[in-house]
Amino acid sequence: MALFSLAMDDGHASVFAITSAITAMVAGGCILTTKGRRFELNFRDAALLTTGAWVIMPAFAALPLLAEPVGLSPVDAYFEMVSGITTTGGTVMVGLDETAPSVLLWRSTVEWIGGIGIIGLAIVILPFLKIGGMQLFRLESSDRSEKSMPRVRGIAAAVGQIYVFLTLACFITYWALGMTPLDALNHALTTLPTAGYSTHDASFGYFDSARLEWAAVVFMMLGAMPFLAYVRLMRGGEWRERIDRQAVTFVTATAVLVLIFAAWLHLAHDVAAGDALTKSAFNVVSVVTTTGFASTDYLAWGGFAATFFFLITFVGGCTGSTAGGIKIFRFQVMAGMLRQQVRRVIHPSAVVPIRYGTRTITDEQVASVGTFMFLFFLSFAVVAIILGFLGLDAETSLSAAATAIANVGPGVGTVGPAGNFAHLPDAAKLVLCAAMILGRLEILGVLILFLPSFYR
Amino acid sequence: MALFSLAMDDGHASVFAITSAITAMVAGGCILTTKGRRFELNFRDAALLTTGAWVIMPAFAALPLLAEPVGLSPVDAYFEMVSGITTTGGTVMVGLDETAPSVLLWRSTVEWIGGIGIIGLAIVILPFLKIGGMQLFRLESSDRSEKSMPRVRGIAAAVGQIYVFLTLACFITYWALGMTPLDALNHALTTLPTAGYSTHDASFGYFDSARLEWAAVVFMMLGAMPFLAYVRLMRGGEWRERIDRQAVTFVTATAVLVLIFAAWLHLAHDVAAGDALTKSAFNVVSVVTTTGFASTDYLAWGGFAATFFFLITFVGGCTGSTAGGIKIFRFQVMAGMLRQQVRRVIHPSAVVPIRYGTRTITDEQVASVGTFMFLFFLSFAVVAIILGFLGLDAETSLSAAATAIANVGPGVGTVGPAGNFAHLPDAAKLVLCAAMILGRLEILGVLILFLPSFYR
Repeated sequence: MALFSLAMDDGHASVFAITSAITAMVAGGCILTTKGRRFELNFRDAALLTTGAWVIMPAFAALPLLAEPVGLSPVDAYFEMVSGITTTGGTVMVGLDETAPSVLLWRSTVEWIGGIGIIGLAIVILPFLKIGGMQLFRLESSDRSEKSMPRVRGIAAAVGQIYVFLTLACFITYWALGMTPLDALNHALTTLPTAGYSTHDASFGYFDSARLEWAAVVFMMLGAMPFLAYVRLMRGGEWRERIDRQAVTFVTATAVLVLIFAAWLHLAHDVAAGDALTKSAFNVVSVVTTTGFASTDYLAWGGFAATFFFLITFVGGCTGSTAGGIKIFRFQVMAGMLRQQVRRVIHPSAVVPIRYGTRTITDEQVASVGTFMFLFFLSFAVVAIILGFLGLDAETSLSAAATAIANVGPGVGTVGPAGNFAHLPDAAKLVLCAAMILGRLEILGVLILFLPSFYR
Repeated sequence: MALFSLAMDDGHASVFAITSAITAMVAGGCILTTKGRRFELNFRDAALLTTGAWVIMPAFAALPLLAEPVGLSPVDAYFEMVSGITTTGGTVMVGLDETAPSVLLWRSTVEWIGGIGIIGLAIVILPFLKIGGMQLFRLESSDRSEKSMPRVRGIAAAVGQIYVFLTLACFITYWALGMTPLDALNHALTTLPTAGYSTHDASFGYFDSARLEWAAVVFMMLGAMPFLAYVRLMRGGEWRERIDRQAVTFVTATAVLVLIFAAWLHLAHDVAAGDALTKSAFNVVSVVTTTGFASTDYLAWGGFAATFFFLITFVGGCTGSTAGGIKIFRFQVMAGMLRQQVRRVIHPSAVVPIRYGTRTITDEQVASVGTFMFLFFLSFAVVAIILGFLGLDAETSLSAAATAIANVGPGVGTVGPAGNFAHLPDAAKLVLCAAMILGRLEILGVLILFLPSFYR
């Protein structure tokens, strides 16, 4: 980053050099003190390490933002980097258009790293923690024995390659469609992790290009797909097995939401059909995939827009992707459960198993998913109440809580697509940092650390 | 009612006489056509009859409101009576202080009947439908065999007596504390069913009496308790068994919410401690028990109040009471599930049963509760989106949807404690009627009627 800054001659080379040196020293110290000790990563260490990484890394990543001319306060810089590494994308920085390129690239890079981090987490760690029904996604052969490690590594490598490939494809597409190379790079780095930092205060609205917006729609959707499905798709085999049920439902559900909102824009605001579809697709996909780019201030469209965007904040993308939120597979499990419940009510003696693809879901897994949803709404309510207590108005506290826990980015109210988080009190920013990390680690991943029995 | 109107000489005697005659004729016709046919009430009939009753009865009950000088439009009159019979208590009528006493007493009576109706439903019908975990509350000896009917009848009679007794006690208390006999009667009739119609536009604020507010707090809480617990309490036996776990949790949780809000009132608004406690207790209890009386415009206290009251709308009282909402026992089951989940994460091999009082809860029952919560939020989201589509602003659509499905009454935004539902478009009122009935019959009770397989 220091070299890039030197090359751009934006005067941030020394800042990045010094902060890199600090980070390297601390990291080096950690490695030296633990060197030679062999240790097996058990469940407890995995949980501690995961949350620890998501709490501590942003602190180091924030160092370059403290220096002038960016000169953020420590709380602001930490918020910005938590928002980045959790791929939330809510920002406290204004005047992005005048900000040094190296700083912008740093923000984008942090989001990109956060994106690959969360895919790894969803594939390797969370299924072992049996969190929120994630045990469903345990790789068939993945247990913690030595033998399976090469296979997990192979999958991780494949996922990494796909992530890099899609980012490159996104970069080239954006460039070809009219962005400067630097804008294309930055936006590609924040599109794939469905993260949403931009290099302009107006976000995608700056480019005012329907073609670019549709390109972004495609790559945001690709980022919100289950990455393991890509691996399965490429491996060949029968089409039936290669098609991912979660991805299909996700695309269908998103299309329905886009059409509903486009219809409303067309009917209530006399927006031409094509334009309505573009605007609806870009903004709905941006929120549903938890990216958070904005092409326009959708709140200016009136009450329905606020209600609609607030509620779809909760949906989220697919599990095993870079997206946040409740996620599609949980809705699928609940829908399956609902069908089963109804059948049980009508035919009390019938035994109806719930199926997910080729597998049968146990009552325990359903209960696990139900618990996650309950926790999600409970966390949302608690965060919103704390934010309200700190003086935020109702719309802002409710939507900031939702957008932080679902890792979306912009919300409704004063944190909407035309606003940002800069004006919030420091305490509220720290609460939102906690909410973002909580949401990113699927809530239970963090909460278990607060139980005494966890350390026994 | 016609006789009461004659006695009060308020000019509504003929209206009530005519509408009673119409209703009696229709009812008589129904009885005559079915006379002599013996039929057994099976599951399907029970479900149809229940929803049918909650949809059709308000239409007949609305007849007296159509006549001058009340002169509501058919939609308004129907809304008012659906709101009454579901014990929601959201009103479209303004100028209550000048409304004829017989009309006011009619509204209150409808709520009172709706209250005893819902207790009966929760005790007798819903447990058989296995809806939302209600199977937990199946009476031990209650099956549909002939033998157990006398026992069910005995319990129903006891519950009815308790309901009448508590209403009388409430009436006498209100009267003793300064209400006119007529006000005391009306408010007693709407306090016990946690329904919330008042005889004054200012609701309880009209009386401006802390003693009356505390009396209302007590009787609202009594109305939101599980009525079977009263029966058990009076029957004697060991104290351990006589204390209802749901009631204890409900009182504790409500006390915590009251204290939080009182603390905020005291700290942020410099309200004296005693006054803050009274105001907080009355308004929090009014919303949590889903009554919906108002003593003051709590929204005028700023953003936190709106966030807080919006979120506690979802809580609800105890199952088997007159209250609506998600209800305490479901939170207890989810909390139990959460504890179990966490233990399973930490000690994967442990088998941890979830207990509710002396019983063990099965995974199926947990899944059933989880499904209910999922459906509750889904219905809320769908209703809110439809209301937004019909032109309501975000705060109003979200909070009207919540307050209708939870059968509370007033919400946030333009349907807050200082507003009412009169200004909404007719389509929105009908959507809210559907939402109130949906919430009252625990959602699944209505939804199953829309399934083709239900009729097979």
